[in-house]
Amino acid sequence: MKRNIGSVLALYPTPAVVIGTMMGDKPTWLLAGHVGIIGHDRIMVSLYKPHYTNQGIKATGRLSVNVVDEKLLPRADYVGITSGAKTDKSGVFEWHLGEGQTPVIEDSPLVMECEVTDNYETETFDNFVCKINATHVEEDCLDENGKVDYNKLKPVLFEMPTYSYLRTGEMIGKCTQPGKEYRENL
Amino acid sequence: MKRNIGSVLALYPTPAVVIGTMMGDKPTWLLAGHVGIIGHDRIMVSLYKPHYTNQGIKATGRLSVNVVDEKLLPRADYVGITSGAKTDKSGVFEWHLGEGQTPVIEDSPLVMECEVTDNYETETFDNFVCKINATHVEEDCLDENGKVDYNKLKPVLFEMPTYSYLRTGEMIGKCTQPGKEYRENL
Repeated sequence: MKRNIGSVLALYPTPAVVIGTMMGDKPTWLLAGHVGIIGHDRIMVSLYKPHYTNQGIKATGRLSVNVVDEKLLPRADYVGITSGAKTDKSGVFEWHLGEGQTPVIEDSPLVMECEVTDNYETETFDNFVCKINATHVEEDCLDENGKVDYNKLKPVLFEMPTYSYLRTGEMIGKCTQPGKEYRENL
Repeated sequence: MKRNIGSVLALYPTPAVVIGTMMGDKPTWLLAGHVGIIGHDRIMVSLYKPHYTNQGIKATGRLSVNVVDEKLLPRADYVGITSGAKTDKSGVFEWHLGEGQTPVIEDSPLVMECEVTDNYETETFDNFVCKINATHVEEDCLDENGKVDYNKLKPVLFEMPTYSYLRTGEMIGKCTQPGKEYRENL
């Protein structure tokens, strides 16, 4: 039996990521839980307008999306509760400037260097629409075909209703297989 | 050591959801893996323009987002590999018309009834920006505070790099806790 709990945003869990951008010659970082995928070639990063990080993204037109694993979580969570306007967060992570001119976190298992192509602004949020210039992955998170293996990567996931982090679980199987089996039994 | 694998969309895993919409007096369904969250009040559903379902969404201005659990996966995957233009998919799920005038799948543990407020069109995709009119949840997927419990709900997750479904894993902990502990030890 279902209960109508009102207008509740419940499209979770989704990856928690650290957004990086350059502010002059230093990086700044912000944890983001609200992201999206547009078509097969763009991502969207939704950030509350007053954030310090948004200024750097607007000035440079670039940002990095650093996937968070459990080892990185304490520092990722810390940059989510600490304002870059008041605290210099540039030293929280070891990093280097990637070929996409964005700060790449050494300890993140997967980093997408992005270029902002548009801002789908809403009342209080900048929603940066980005194309991906480069994707850097730890070698041991790739499978034998050179594809990202999420069971090795195990991104930390986020959900807002109880404001918690979750683990990525094990693989169920390949897409289209359950549907084909269902079709055969129709 | 990281390897640059090029421009690879790797912001996964994300929930696999069945999008429902009315076509006249019958529903049609489509599996979607590319969704997003905008601010704290909108979601985005990215659907390839030629899909039959897009016509219904444009005509009615409404869609339902039906979260998929493992029990629902064979049928959800089937509606992802079967075109509604050629096959009547209206009978695949038991459903009822919700108060938001969208088809609500009985066997889905969580359904958001949405109203389309905008279409952020890209070359080949309709990216429907939606507000949520009602969220229907199975009682046994709520915690003692009436909040959605993702460890009970366990949405099926999707990733494109190896085209697979994954399980939602267990809870790691509450947001802001790991960051506060990190800060205390600075």
